[in-house]
Amino acid sequence: MTDKQKLSIVTLCGSVRKDSFNAALLRAVPGISAGDFIFTEGSSVADVPIYDGDLERLSGFPAVVTSLANLIREADGVLIASPEYNYSVPGGLKNLLDWVSRTPDQPFARKPVLLQSVSGGAMGGVRMQHHLRQIMVFLNARVLARPEVIIGPAQTRFSSEGDLVDPPTREAVRLQLAEFASFIRERMPG
Amino acid sequence: MTDKQKLSIVTLCGSVRKDSFNAALLRAVPGISAGDFIFTEGSSVADVPIYDGDLERLSGFPAVVTSLANLIREADGVLIASPEYNYSVPGGLKNLLDWVSRTPDQPFARKPVLLQSVSGGAMGGVRMQHHLRQIMVFLNARVLARPEVIIGPAQTRFSSEGDLVDPPTREAVRLQLAEFASFIRERMPG
Amino acid sequence: MTDKQKLSIVTLCGSVRKDSFNAALLRAVPGISAGDFIFTEGSSVADVPIYDGDLERLSGFPAVVTSLANLIREADGVLIASPEYNYSVPGGLKNLLDWVSRTPDQPFARKPVLLQSVSGGAMGGVRMQHHLRQIMVFLNARVLARPEVIIGPAQTRFSSEGDLVDPPTREAVRLQLAEFASFIRERMPG
Amino acid sequence: MTDKQKLSIVTLCGSVRKDSFNAALLRAVPGISAGDFIFTEGSSVADVPIYDGDLERLSGFPAVVTSLANLIREADGVLIASPEYNYSVPGGLKNLLDWVSRTPDQPFARKPVLLQSVSGGAMGGVRMQHHLRQIMVFLNARVLARPEVIIGPAQTRFSSEGDLVDPPTREAVRLQLAEFASFIRERMPG
Repeated sequence: MTDKQKLSIVTLCGSVRKDSFNAALLRAVPGISAGDFIFTEGSSVADVPIYDGDLERLSGFPAVVTSLANLIREADGVLIASPEYNYSVPGGLKNLLDWVSRTPDQPFARKPVLLQSVSGGAMGGVRMQHHLRQIMVFLNARVLARPEVIIGPAQTRFSSEGDLVDPPTREAVRLQLAEFASFIRERMPG
Repeated sequence: MTDKQKLSIVTLCGSVRKDSFNAALLRAVPGISAGDFIFTEGSSVADVPIYDGDLERLSGFPAVVTSLANLIREADGVLIASPEYNYSVPGGLKNLLDWVSRTPDQPFARKPVLLQSVSGGAMGGVRMQHHLRQIMVFLNARVLARPEVIIGPAQTRFSSEGDLVDPPTREAVRLQLAEFASFIRERMPG
Repeated sequence: MTDKQKLSIVTLCGSVRKDSFNAALLRAVPGISAGDFIFTEGSSVADVPIYDGDLERLSGFPAVVTSLANLIREADGVLIASPEYNYSVPGGLKNLLDWVSRTPDQPFARKPVLLQSVSGGAMGGVRMQHHLRQIMVFLNARVLARPEVIIGPAQTRFSSEGDLVDPPTREAVRLQLAEFASFIRERMPG
Repeated sequence: MTDKQKLSIVTLCGSVRKDSFNAALLRAVPGISAGDFIFTEGSSVADVPIYDGDLERLSGFPAVVTSLANLIREADGVLIASPEYNYSVPGGLKNLLDWVSRTPDQPFARKPVLLQSVSGGAMGGVRMQHHLRQIMVFLNARVLARPEVIIGPAQTRFSSEGDLVDPPTREAVRLQLAEFASFIRERMPG
């Protein structure tokens, strides 16, 4: 396989925390995916102001929003890894999506999207993923249904250095990424 | 009825926009509710940074979060009016709730909560309310089930000056507020 | 405490299976709840036909629906324990609720409701509970928010005879039942 | 276009009622879709018993379930039109899906699925579709995100003879069906 055939994926992380398990998961993904993808890190959710329709009307989009929207528009897919806050999507991640959704030629339209989550509890972010899927319906994204990657409790899967060390979890991630590659490629002209 | 017996309600608005229909709804509510409540406006969702666990650990809570949490803790209830962004809760509103949820003695616990929404479309924010109810389960709030106030399309219910002029909508709001008053009072020691 | 002060609770089980873990949970509950409640088993979800508006119009309600609706109307609360089928409420349980919701003086209105779930997987039915809560909004029930009882994987919590033997799970059930008793009583005239 | 190139679609209706608006919608669809599809009516939700794991173990699948599962397995896609009962999927429809989901080589896996709903109220079944999408995640179906067809209030869109006569609604259905045809074909080997 040549580099040309690799699939370009923009990653978004729902957590800002330096030692975030979801950031750690996104760091682990390239090593697990066996060269199918080229990953590019999207903007941090902390880099944009709270969405305000007046601000948008007066000043347009923050530069970071425009460049993220462009990245997504040109990518073959998007991978979002996020913790769950209060049984839903972290406000910061939702805020970033709210901004991006307003850019011209809405970039998530028909875009393949993959969801992952890690949390400290056993539920692993399952409720966050439910809400994120619903959001992606509005954005008209093509979200892979299964396999799902819902990881918890985080402490039993990652080392203290933040490495994803649990073999069954690594295998689950590998299978999901392989399915995502097929999911994207089945929709590409041959 | 004396002022002492009035119920104190903190209001939160999901939109920052100056001409927000949800802000207009919150302005209309006191005139509709016939003196059952005293309303206090909570912080704007634009007044807090994106939640960051590291920031919380290093600097504690922003002053505006602490004072909002205190307001809620002391109130008899909370009224949230919000638009729907991308089939869910606006990121800014969720971000404010994420901050508040982290404060000591989590202020939404067992707190009566009332939801309202206005949107430009016919669906009126119904999907936003669904997600917000789920969030409130985590926060252990007591959310009134029905009647629901889901207003849309906004342009047919509000005047161009932002006044809620549609009589059936005003009546629906009045009935909901009366039920909310009973909902709060039935749980108060006699 | 005399019998008169006990709270009457109707139980509904989402599974028909003889060895259902959710049925086993409902059998365990009275022994855990320390006499706060008197439990009455509601109809089996298998005892009613698939809901059909024409059937209702022509023949009225099946006797089992009418008697369940009466039971619920007279009870202090309802406890529903159910597995999760396909990330949602079992069709049979939903069908029973659909029938009951059509009876006069809709019996779930303002009724305290408690949810529990057991499943073979680690997620324990969390997605079923999410949907059931949404259904209960329409029915205008008063569903306890927390603590939640979401039990999985079942095999590690129940003995092979179907007894709920796991001490932390029993304690979680006990705490939830105690909170439910307070939740009901705080709304009763003193 | 020859018959060979037409896409085969199994239809399922969430309502049993003879004058069901959702059945009326399914009758209107072939005339709107301009020959892209061949539609085959799936089983009525009233034709199967309430799901019971013991029954399945002892007697296997009802014949109607097996034949529906086969139909779906061989089809290019599934179209589900359903009312909303109590803010969710009708119990009967869910029960049918519960049965089908248990058949070998689960027939919804990777199957293109299209959702439509009609209701008497303005919300048109939006909450039912939300739950049905979540169910379809478990079933690993490929559900078209948008455009959505959410029709309400029914009385203003259908004639008293049950014909879908409202031109904008017919156009919305036509656009959705065209997108569904592309959605299926983009995944077919050229």
